[in-house]
Amino acid sequence: MSYTLPEFLAHAIAMEDEAAERYLELADMMEAHRNDEVSALFRDMHRFSLMHRDAIRARVGSIELPRLKSWEFRWRTPPEMGDEDAFDYMLDAYHALGYARDNETRALQYYRSVAEESSDADVKRLAGEFATEEDEHVAALERWIERIHRPSETWAQDPAHRA
Amino acid sequence: MSYTLPEFLAHAIAMEDEAAERYLELADMMEAHRNDEVSALFRDMHRFSLMHRDAIRARVGSIELPRLKSWEFRWRTPPEMGDEDAFDYMLDAYHALGYARDNETRALQYYRSVAEESSDADVKRLAGEFATEEDEHVAALERWIERIHRPSETWAQDPAHRA
Repeated sequence: MSYTLPEFLAHAIAMEDEAAERYLELADMMEAHRNDEVSALFRDMHRFSLMHRDAIRARVGSIELPRLKSWEFRWRTPPEMGDEDAFDYMLDAYHALGYARDNETRALQYYRSVAEESSDADVKRLAGEFATEEDEHVAALERWIERIHRPSETWAQDPAHRA
Repeated sequence: MSYTLPEFLAHAIAMEDEAAERYLELADMMEAHRNDEVSALFRDMHRFSLMHRDAIRARVGSIELPRLKSWEFRWRTPPEMGDEDAFDYMLDAYHALGYARDNETRALQYYRSVAEESSDADVKRLAGEFATEEDEHVAALERWIERIHRPSETWAQDPAHRA
């Protein structure tokens, strides 16, 4: 975790870019499913990710950034993916929000560990700032998950739904 | 699974493109790890994926293809991904080959199910052909996994290594 500043910035940009693309897909999917409220949330998240990415790019300026491996920044594919089932599964706002939350949590954990372990002062400070931002994203998604899916008695009793 | 021909072709192209990119990453990673033999295998797989993608593109001609969601064609991220551990984990040829094999198996399953369930004769035939091709990729990766990791007595006795 001894990132140089260019390595760290490359990760941050790739992660924001990836998040932006995924939020756009989720927004389109929710729109197709006529869930305008959650679609609007995902469009906001898409815009925030782009804004954050552009802010980081502005900071990069002429620094040359390394190329990263896909698994260093890509979102996970949804769990239980396979054929049509995955699509049906992801159409559900609750699952789409949970998927986004899990991926944002990974980003949060990444930034936190960099902030804790880096020996470069700039990297340390930036990673801390970005972790705070991700923390807000995770919290926002959590609130929506709560709101969308107010568990009924029956649902809460089903062990399959206790994540 | 009632794909139209354009839908099916879009999936096939995206899957080959994704595989090509991932094989290139795996090849670079193995090269950095000085495993030239496995690196060469991944470079071959990269080239085969590109050739197959281009062959499908040639068939597409002027047909307009739909845009897909990332989870319909992307490879999974490696299991147990997190910080540096994932990189160390993936540097191991055995794990890199297993990761590729698992992703190719998903492609194989996808093509097989399309071949079985499609009502479009062209889609059915093409999906069957592509499944055969994926089957060969999976078999090739399996042979390499066998070869790279000839289990010693000790290793075979460790339950952690029985996948």
